Amino acid sequence: MSEGALINRLAVIGVGLIGGSFALSLKNKGLVGSVIGVGRNEDNLILAKQLNIIDEYSTSLKEAVETADVVFIAVPVSKYDDVFKEIKQHIKHGTIITDGGSTKVNIIEAANREFSESINQFFVPGHPIAGNEKSGAGAAIDSLYVNHKIILTPTKSTDKTALELVTKLWQSIGANVVLMEPVHHDLVLGATSHLPHALAFSLVNMLATLNEREEIFEYAAGGFKDFTRIASSDPKMWQDICLANKDVLLKHIQMYKEELDELSKALKDDHSEYLFNYFSRSKQTRDKFVKT
Amino acid sequence: MSEGALINRLAVIGVGLIGGSFALSLKNKGLVGSVIGVGRNEDNLILAKQLNIIDEYSTSLKEAVETADVVFIAVPVSKYDDVFKEIKQHIKHGTIITDGGSTKVNIIEAANREFSESINQFFVPGHPIAGNEKSGAGAAIDSLYVNHKIILTPTKSTDKTALELVTKLWQSIGANVVLMEPVHHDLVLGATSHLPHALAFSLVNMLATLNEREEIFEYAAGGFKDFTRIASSDPKMWQDICLANKDVLLKHIQMYKEELDELSKALKDDHSEYLFNYFSRSKQTRDKFVKT
Repeated sequence: MSEGALINRLAVIGVGLIGGSFALSLKNKGLVGSVIGVGRNEDNLILAKQLNIIDEYSTSLKEAVETADVVFIAVPVSKYDDVFKEIKQHIKHGTIITDGGSTKVNIIEAANREFSESINQFFVPGHPIAGNEKSGAGAAIDSLYVNHKIILTPTKSTDKTALELVTKLWQSIGANVVLMEPVHHDLVLGATSHLPHALAFSLVNMLATLNEREEIFEYAAGGFKDFTRIASSDPKMWQDICLANKDVLLKHIQMYKEELDELSKALKDDHSEYLFNYFSRSKQTRDKFVKT
Repeated sequence: MSEGALINRLAVIGVGLIGGSFALSLKNKGLVGSVIGVGRNEDNLILAKQLNIIDEYSTSLKEAVETADVVFIAVPVSKYDDVFKEIKQHIKHGTIITDGGSTKVNIIEAANREFSESINQFFVPGHPIAGNEKSGAGAAIDSLYVNHKIILTPTKSTDKTALELVTKLWQSIGANVVLMEPVHHDLVLGATSHLPHALAFSLVNMLATLNEREEIFEYAAGGFKDFTRIASSDPKMWQDICLANKDVLLKHIQMYKEELDELSKALKDDHSEYLFNYFSRSKQTRDKFVKT
């Protein structure tokens, strides 16, 4: 292990924007001895090696995890069961497993189901609040996590030393680590990310059913473009996330529909004062909490 | 009237971003002999004169309209009845009235109600698809309408020469004029502007009812900020617009709720293929129609 490195060997499962940026940030700071990348798309792995994101690659999970001190999982949420089933057969005792998945409760449930206690204690579930619309190793940058929040959601069985090391890795590449209960994480992210995505997808689909759709999109001004930008997000990723956090999402959609019912009632009744207060409350809330 | 001018005297009722930018654009191109601004906020009118947006100002509608060839109304949608009642007493025969209101059917109804046929034939209803979050004369710029769409919604009784002059005024300051049926205008703008605003206001208000609201807004990432930006819009303006176009808005909210019901059903049933297709359709539609 080179001087200054925190870990000897990192295995990254899924070398895209999230996994690739994690590896690149650690490598560029000399915090890791070597990185092996694993994935199913060999072209992407070759690119990742060319870009010095990883030192070597494999399409075999066995090969990647059996020599690793830390395994970072950054695959779609729906693939965790398969990955857990495979790596548990090859991982050495004490190897730390952590991840970048957008939901946490279902991933922890999968870990509880698949891992023995001796593996599971070294699993540190995490979620970096960073990213953009890009994907693949070509999108990885070593500044992605600087000044961004990383939520870690350890459970009662999580080993303290493992949590400390994962915390240190993130902090060393400029991220701000926050601890959160898994259930709480899914609720907060459900509200700020999963619900808005679901609403944006639904708005675009509703408008596409109108006869005037061509004109509607033609006359769309700036506000509409901002409002629907997230409706261009990756469908497979959002299928996975919405299903993984479906209980929270269904509850929030129901509450949102009730909110729309209140607004509709005020409109029907020409209740102008109610509407003014309703819109004022929203403006004040957003202006208070969200900058720009 | 100076050489090159299209009109001798313009009266602008409401010298804010929309009215001020219209006056400034015409003045800077030498297309108008003189501009008189009218409003209730004298400080704003003084500022408008200092900024050379208008040549003189008055707080009396009578004084402003009785000498004007063209009257441009840019007041909140709910104020049109009052403005129409007042100006019809003082306007000279043949003066062209046009406007920048965000809804058209209710404004045309008000004109039909208030104006005699001899006044009403010179009313050319319009709506520039331009603007930003700023307001007041200080926000006016002479490039606001360049390459922006201006929708004019003439009725059967609208004088052809009046329509031609208003069209020429807009085109001369760089705008692209489009003609549309008033009902059609309200439907298209209801879908691309009024509904998204209502949805964004409702989302912020719903999230504000959750116990975790402080954290929710703290963890809000880029997508959420974009999605809710329009929830910071002016409450009074949106109270007016939503009430003015309430039939369309209520219909769209109802359709939107049905769209959410479909999504909820697919989530409940774990119908992953449906969800993938649903999100794919939305992404394809937005990517096809909306650039950036």
